[in-house]
Amino acid sequence: MVDQQAVFAVDLGGTRMRGALISPEGDVLVRDTVPTQASRGEPAAMRRLAGLLERMSTAVPGVEVAGIGMALAGPVDPVAATVHNPPNLPTWDGTSPTADLSTNVSVPAWVHNDASLAALGEFVYGIGQGMSNLVMVTLGTGVGGGLVLDGKVYGGLRGFAGEIGHLVVEPAGPPCPCGGCGCLEVMASGTGLARMARERLEAGESSIVLSMARGEISRVRAETLVRAEARADRLASEVLRAGGRYLGIGVATLRSVLDPEMIVIGGGVASNSHIFWPAMAASARVHGMRGDKATLPVTPTVLGDDAGLLGAAAMAWGELGVGPSYLK
Amino acid sequence: MVDQQAVFAVDLGGTRMRGALISPEGDVLVRDTVPTQASRGEPAAMRRLAGLLERMSTAVPGVEVAGIGMALAGPVDPVAATVHNPPNLPTWDGTSPTADLSTNVSVPAWVHNDASLAALGEFVYGIGQGMSNLVMVTLGTGVGGGLVLDGKVYGGLRGFAGEIGHLVVEPAGPPCPCGGCGCLEVMASGTGLARMARERLEAGESSIVLSMARGEISRVRAETLVRAEARADRLASEVLRAGGRYLGIGVATLRSVLDPEMIVIGGGVASNSHIFWPAMAASARVHGMRGDKATLPVTPTVLGDDAGLLGAAAMAWGELGVGPSYLK
Repeated sequence: MVDQQAVFAVDLGGTRMRGALISPEGDVLVRDTVPTQASRGEPAAMRRLAGLLERMSTAVPGVEVAGIGMALAGPVDPVAATVHNPPNLPTWDGTSPTADLSTNVSVPAWVHNDASLAALGEFVYGIGQGMSNLVMVTLGTGVGGGLVLDGKVYGGLRGFAGEIGHLVVEPAGPPCPCGGCGCLEVMASGTGLARMARERLEAGESSIVLSMARGEISRVRAETLVRAEARADRLASEVLRAGGRYLGIGVATLRSVLDPEMIVIGGGVASNSHIFWPAMAASARVHGMRGDKATLPVTPTVLGDDAGLLGAAAMAWGELGVGPSYLK
Repeated sequence: MVDQQAVFAVDLGGTRMRGALISPEGDVLVRDTVPTQASRGEPAAMRRLAGLLERMSTAVPGVEVAGIGMALAGPVDPVAATVHNPPNLPTWDGTSPTADLSTNVSVPAWVHNDASLAALGEFVYGIGQGMSNLVMVTLGTGVGGGLVLDGKVYGGLRGFAGEIGHLVVEPAGPPCPCGGCGCLEVMASGTGLARMARERLEAGESSIVLSMARGEISRVRAETLVRAEARADRLASEVLRAGGRYLGIGVATLRSVLDPEMIVIGGGVASNSHIFWPAMAASARVHGMRGDKATLPVTPTVLGDDAGLLGAAAMAWGELGVGPSYLK
């Protein structure tokens, strides 16, 4: 007996795949996680996901799965539903995860980039409810981003729009893994903050960061800096302030180019550091246009790690005709 | 006897108002210009425009004017059709030019920002025909811009999107009239290039630019630099190269954020300098993502000064139901 319909939402990252059955209202009925084991190949991962879905369906009897929405950590062509050179999923280039998953599970499936779907999650179920557009910036190891413009996920020509981490914020900045240089990602991501701190430690600067990393400079992480900041460490505070300032430059640029209703910031550093956010806000005001200085439509994520999962659910519900379509 | 329908397209700038009767195919049937005389007030300007329309209608008998499209040099709320603090049209804040013009001329009228409509002009009648999205950057005294995304003029929350001149390209750069600092406009506009040259001349650097400006540093213009470049002047060449590099940073950022099908660059410096464009292209590649380095979807405008006028026509035709709507 079917009591309720749900979609199977998947947040597929380089390390783990999180799955959940989610109602049209955005309620998570059940959730579970399996390892991605990306290097063992995409078909094997899809079989593991099918198994996860089967276990979850058994766990909540009476729920019928109507479709699948997948948020994938990498560039996705949402029309062809293929993955393009995902740095965190080696050997997956050119694969079609949803097509392969659909052969195991006979319901329709849709896939999109995880940061784009995090933006959609906030737009449909989070802070962006009732808005017409929203920009999401996710700070983590890298810096990701997604755009919902005029009620639709905006993917650009190739589905690659929203690469906010590669907005140039420091022309003379260091090279970025993307191939560019001075990108927001090298100046404000967890990796970028840790690099800045390590460079100063290597230059001989003293800081409790070093003892927190057990004397090994290579062990310094962005989280180390946030902990050191709480103890008023100067190096940590300055690096976090610099990172916040660069994010503020990105915020000012996004505002001038897109005039968004809200810019949502996700990630541990932004929410845990007491220095990073105010530095971002001050810098966004300095670099912002006159009429934009009084107000700053920037907010922390309200969905946190679930933004992508809920965005995947919103996409699937929309394509199933329950609610508006958020794709083209 | 009515042989043909046309729209009255207006490009309304701080100094002059250009009008034209334009067919659905984008053919200009007749064109003329009247001074804006902005300080004498918006109603007087609208009466002058109504007179211009009457004269042009007389000049081409058999043409019926079905509607009006207006490209205005300043921020426009396209829904309320009101103007917001246009820097080049003092005393016009809060006015509704199309409403006032409609009372003189009994056909419907639509208004939008001129740079947004320049983007639409290229999209409908210029280089962007058949594309799904396009970004326009207009280099002049300032730097303007417009976005056509998924076939619509994208205005953002307040209709202010596309302020590409206020993309931050140099965090430590000088203040911008917008209230920010280090904006593309201060680093690559005609005003910005002239400022950079003047600063170097004031510091005592020698250059033929000074004699070209009849010995007065204050007379140096961007056009002076382009002429001096042709005579291999070092100062002029370096300033134009720097400006081009900053535009390239903006291009790289726009590409990462919006993944556009084409970025169209308008303005005299971009088309007349032999240094500016290659410097822009090289910098866009340096700052671009790996997969984006081989191709560079950047082109000079093909419609030139008429882009805004033709965009105004396309908007009016779309709202009249001849062709798709390019607004929401």
